[in-house]
Amino acid sequence: MSLRGAILKLKPYTAGKPINEVKREFGLKEVIKLASNENPLGCSPLVCEVIKGLAGQVNLYPDSSNFDLKNELAKELNVEPEMLFLGTGSDSIIRAICSVFIDPGDESIMGEISFQRYEDNTKIMGGNVIKVPMKNYKLDVEKMVQSITDKTKVLWFCSPNNPTGPIIKRQELLSVIDKIPKSVILVMDEAYYEYVDDPEYPQTINLLEKYPNVIILRTFSKAYGLAGLRVGYGIANENIAKYINSVIGPFDVNLIAQSAAIAALKDKEFLRKVVKLNKESREYFYYEFSKMGLEYIESQANFVMVNLKVDDKIVFNELLKRGVIVRPGYLFEMPGWLRVSTGTMEQNEKFILALKDVLNGMR
Amino acid sequence: MSLRGAILKLKPYTAGKPINEVKREFGLKEVIKLASNENPLGCSPLVCEVIKGLAGQVNLYPDSSNFDLKNELAKELNVEPEMLFLGTGSDSIIRAICSVFIDPGDESIMGEISFQRYEDNTKIMGGNVIKVPMKNYKLDVEKMVQSITDKTKVLWFCSPNNPTGPIIKRQELLSVIDKIPKSVILVMDEAYYEYVDDPEYPQTINLLEKYPNVIILRTFSKAYGLAGLRVGYGIANENIAKYINSVIGPFDVNLIAQSAAIAALKDKEFLRKVVKLNKESREYFYYEFSKMGLEYIESQANFVMVNLKVDDKIVFNELLKRGVIVRPGYLFEMPGWLRVSTGTMEQNEKFILALKDVLNGMR
Repeated sequence: MSLRGAILKLKPYTAGKPINEVKREFGLKEVIKLASNENPLGCSPLVCEVIKGLAGQVNLYPDSSNFDLKNELAKELNVEPEMLFLGTGSDSIIRAICSVFIDPGDESIMGEISFQRYEDNTKIMGGNVIKVPMKNYKLDVEKMVQSITDKTKVLWFCSPNNPTGPIIKRQELLSVIDKIPKSVILVMDEAYYEYVDDPEYPQTINLLEKYPNVIILRTFSKAYGLAGLRVGYGIANENIAKYINSVIGPFDVNLIAQSAAIAALKDKEFLRKVVKLNKESREYFYYEFSKMGLEYIESQANFVMVNLKVDDKIVFNELLKRGVIVRPGYLFEMPGWLRVSTGTMEQNEKFILALKDVLNGMR
Repeated sequence: MSLRGAILKLKPYTAGKPINEVKREFGLKEVIKLASNENPLGCSPLVCEVIKGLAGQVNLYPDSSNFDLKNELAKELNVEPEMLFLGTGSDSIIRAICSVFIDPGDESIMGEISFQRYEDNTKIMGGNVIKVPMKNYKLDVEKMVQSITDKTKVLWFCSPNNPTGPIIKRQELLSVIDKIPKSVILVMDEAYYEYVDDPEYPQTINLLEKYPNVIILRTFSKAYGLAGLRVGYGIANENIAKYINSVIGPFDVNLIAQSAAIAALKDKEFLRKVVKLNKESREYFYYEFSKMGLEYIESQANFVMVNLKVDDKIVFNELLKRGVIVRPGYLFEMPGWLRVSTGTMEQNEKFILALKDVLNGMR
């Protein structure tokens, strides 16, 4: 067996611990998971109906052109369907971007604390990742742009940034975008787009005409509540979209996911509820963390990073014993921190109670 | 934008024409599709129940380790779970194999008339495909093995071969397998495994211990009727499996697909019905083609290739007008032929009637 050298450098992705595993391990009946930025309200009832209705048709291949879903999305976003590409979650699109642009020895640039899959997929293509230190837990977009070399093919701007939470503001983006050579792809990863309420969040679709090197990523996994079905999408000029579509598997988005995503787009009321609850949850967390004297990072997404100033592995394990799954910061190179996803108010309160209990026990 | 050179060489994948499109185009009420080797009996009722039951849980990420499905499959196949890898259809696994083994300039070897995705995915990684001429529409495994060079990383043995239908028999395989260097991966693509009734079909799982360079591919898309859900899998030694798992997206197999596949494995009665109907359909096609004086290729899969000796594009279009979608041979570099998937007996008869009508009109 003669393996590619690039493959030996990969590190495994750590997903959130599954609820059933924690129940088994600790003999618990009730466990809540605030670890994977999942939607605590489930999905739209319209989506449920569509799924049930398609149960008898899964013997058929999905539409390889994603015709209906692309048309619905195009209307929603006010873009041409030819500017869209869909995949098995954003992950599939990140992979595709690397497949189209990264040759062995090429580089992509990301924040030091940002989404790991940029790194994994760059490496799979034999490329190298340049990680630029964060500036107060935000992406340092100026440094990132200054780090561009002849080898740079892709810049990953994650906004809101996973796992820290802040956005890149309009002025920040506009102050650097003209310094990015048109030969370098600027990926605006907006997986948490729907949760943002900062008026300074840029509407990047408006940039696509002037900046043909921009790719925008969005997903149905978060605010729309379809993480389990796997639908991510991208928006770019037609030329880029054509090439990205050429490397995505023809049946990447499954039959149920295509119709479920269309149904999800139609239920604006569900989306409003999700966004409203998320805002309340973030504020609840801020309030409680402040009362506990804990530093946190203001987030525009559906998770909050909090600084425990004690060993996050211990806190993570103690929370597990109390039936609460979160994400320990060491996984993101932020030891001493926890990332907690927003849940229902009941789940949020259960988490805060458990956290207080754990931290009191450690003092 | 600076595109990888490899990307410019890709040709688009042509999927079977969707039923709704044909209905629209030709103003037809009833259209049958015998073009994509889909299961005419749908899927197991157990699968339908599982899908409906999970409709309200699609906000959750799928289990990234595919824990339960791997365990069920391992029992079914009598292998260790660590020898398995799962993806969004076999397509995802073919991609992963190329990601692990093909560097720019490397080669993979396939039959001249075989599954196109071997070529696409080799090219995405910057590799070249060597296409070895067929021997009476079968893979010429001897020539394929003789074509191995220092650059060869992967050999694609598709058995039954899509789109022609024949298998590689035990003796054929055993007569060449020792000539394949252990540094070259031998992929046994057995997507149509369940349909084979030739007693000379080799049980390749038994080869894995002696030949650590063998990878077996199977799928839930065909006999199990889950094409729309996207679940393919591979079996290999633990070392290969580990590396392939490292390049497959962590949430590649969606939440519904994982549970649906487990349910599909349990319904042996459904599988028996599917295989029985398929055998009857193949024999019906053989009988009718013989009566019509048409040459065909004996198939061990759920499709049959038939030689029309007239322009297959014209026949394909005339069949569309009559509400029957098949696959014209020119797509597979077999002009003058058609590939027809087996349907229900009613669908098979509708196809034969339509074909007779079309061919009579052309004489």
